[in-house]
Amino acid sequence: MHDIIIIGGGVSGFAAAIYAGRFRMSTLVLTGDFKGGLITWAKEVQNYPGFKSISGMDLAKSIEDQAMEYDIDVRRDTVVGISKLNDGSFEVATRKGKFSSRTVLFATGTKVRNLGVDGESKYKNCGVHYCALCDGYFYKGKVVAVIGGSDSAAIDALMLKDLAEKVYVIYRKDKLRSEPVNTDRVLKSPNVEVIYNTNVTGFIGDTMLKSVRLDRPHRGSSVLDVDGVFVSIGHVPQTELLGGLGVRLDQNGFVEVDRNSCTNVPGFFAAGDVTNTEFKQAITGVAQAVMAVYWAHNYVDKSKKENF
Amino acid sequence: MHDIIIIGGGVSGFAAAIYAGRFRMSTLVLTGDFKGGLITWAKEVQNYPGFKSISGMDLAKSIEDQAMEYDIDVRRDTVVGISKLNDGSFEVATRKGKFSSRTVLFATGTKVRNLGVDGESKYKNCGVHYCALCDGYFYKGKVVAVIGGSDSAAIDALMLKDLAEKVYVIYRKDKLRSEPVNTDRVLKSPNVEVIYNTNVTGFIGDTMLKSVRLDRPHRGSSVLDVDGVFVSIGHVPQTELLGGLGVRLDQNGFVEVDRNSCTNVPGFFAAGDVTNTEFKQAITGVAQAVMAVYWAHNYVDKSKKENF
Repeated sequence: MHDIIIIGGGVSGFAAAIYAGRFRMSTLVLTGDFKGGLITWAKEVQNYPGFKSISGMDLAKSIEDQAMEYDIDVRRDTVVGISKLNDGSFEVATRKGKFSSRTVLFATGTKVRNLGVDGESKYKNCGVHYCALCDGYFYKGKVVAVIGGSDSAAIDALMLKDLAEKVYVIYRKDKLRSEPVNTDRVLKSPNVEVIYNTNVTGFIGDTMLKSVRLDRPHRGSSVLDVDGVFVSIGHVPQTELLGGLGVRLDQNGFVEVDRNSCTNVPGFFAAGDVTNTEFKQAITGVAQAVMAVYWAHNYVDKSKKENF
Repeated sequence: MHDIIIIGGGVSGFAAAIYAGRFRMSTLVLTGDFKGGLITWAKEVQNYPGFKSISGMDLAKSIEDQAMEYDIDVRRDTVVGISKLNDGSFEVATRKGKFSSRTVLFATGTKVRNLGVDGESKYKNCGVHYCALCDGYFYKGKVVAVIGGSDSAAIDALMLKDLAEKVYVIYRKDKLRSEPVNTDRVLKSPNVEVIYNTNVTGFIGDTMLKSVRLDRPHRGSSVLDVDGVFVSIGHVPQTELLGGLGVRLDQNGFVEVDRNSCTNVPGFFAAGDVTNTEFKQAITGVAQAVMAVYWAHNYVDKSKKENF
């Protein structure tokens, strides 16, 4: 019987592990296959207080290494089910086994959202991509488009502008909603062009992507030729595992937590991008995780006194 | 008219400044005399995710340096009054001037609590101290006592044990309430002795402290000879400035904030040790500050549209 099982191996999961280790809780971290989480896709993180500039990979690694200083168990194993037993404890089933715990911290994060238009699955990895840092390099000297207007989209465009000859940003609204510092940089980049009020409605090509279809003509044409496209239209919370637990989600499918990172299910905590905080940053997810462990530790202390 | 005035120059204040700068808000930071805040008293910080080990001074400095990358104004000036004007903006009076702002982030932190017993003010800095890191070095090879049982008290004892010949920890309860990892270290240190269930009721000496009076005899004597004492019984929130503003405080005098770092006064935000979060850590204060700036930025955007 563990005191806490942490599901997720991103910065929130491993930040939780640091504190759980310091609190001397019996701790198991289940990372799944994707250790480090989505932040590892960030080439440069400038807004984690403490580091002027660090790669997402290095930030994730440094938090993981810090957790490994403590007496915790980390397994690269994927969770397939979570249930709450009558005695109040949790049973976490994985591909390789079953584990029991007094509390669970759910920090599974998000995955990228698909555009959901014609040709998207056909050209996936043959011109249609979801991670500029991972796949941008293939487009050195080429023409690419970023679809989206969020801060992530702006950051993708800024990365791609140094590689590609030309970068279109195609956004359905009339104003980017990226961080102002990044919006400025996009608008000042000579090889970046923002196409506003426009949706991409399909992907066209042969074996490789050749162009995208637009719902509003750009310079007289509703087809725009590009070598590659980076879809950056947000993220979907990874909550498939919560089906039977009765954990409350908000209207967008994110886990509802209070300021102590408690969900509505006693002993079940959540932190990071999977939660319903409006402003999702590495630093806020990490702090949520720390808060969760503090309250999980209190909960375990109380549970042990009441003998489960 | 600034968009945001940040009152406080600790890690929360400067983390806020990083984000305010990135949001391109017109930003003024008023640090008072004590730049860096209380964390600068920590010899080693092991629990700020991202750094396995860093001195409190270095952590504060790295967050401050990071903020200075942005276009913000920082002044070493002390706030003497804050008022809210009829148009919804704030006027912040300092020793040297007056400043206007659409929003305020209050991050003044805490100061150390006095014990409030006979002789405390007489022997202040003559045997009675409040910062082991600052003043511990005077007691190399001597006998000292730490008063308190919190995590800070344990950390003080652990620091002092490497300097002093003998360290007493005098605590009014029967069990230390420090982080388990630190409790273990204290209990395993051969030259640290914890005296439980005991209060210090007075300080005795001539020009320098010689001993403390105990309310319960220790080894038959209600006087314990020590060369120095470190009072570590918690902190008092610095909220004197909030008198006229109607900002709601909890029963212990900490500023009530919600998960978005909003107080009950529109446009007035708070973050860090001065707030009513139960678990106060550098990382949680920093994240509260980041959250505050996000909501302050939204508030300013809305205010500008409504023309104030």
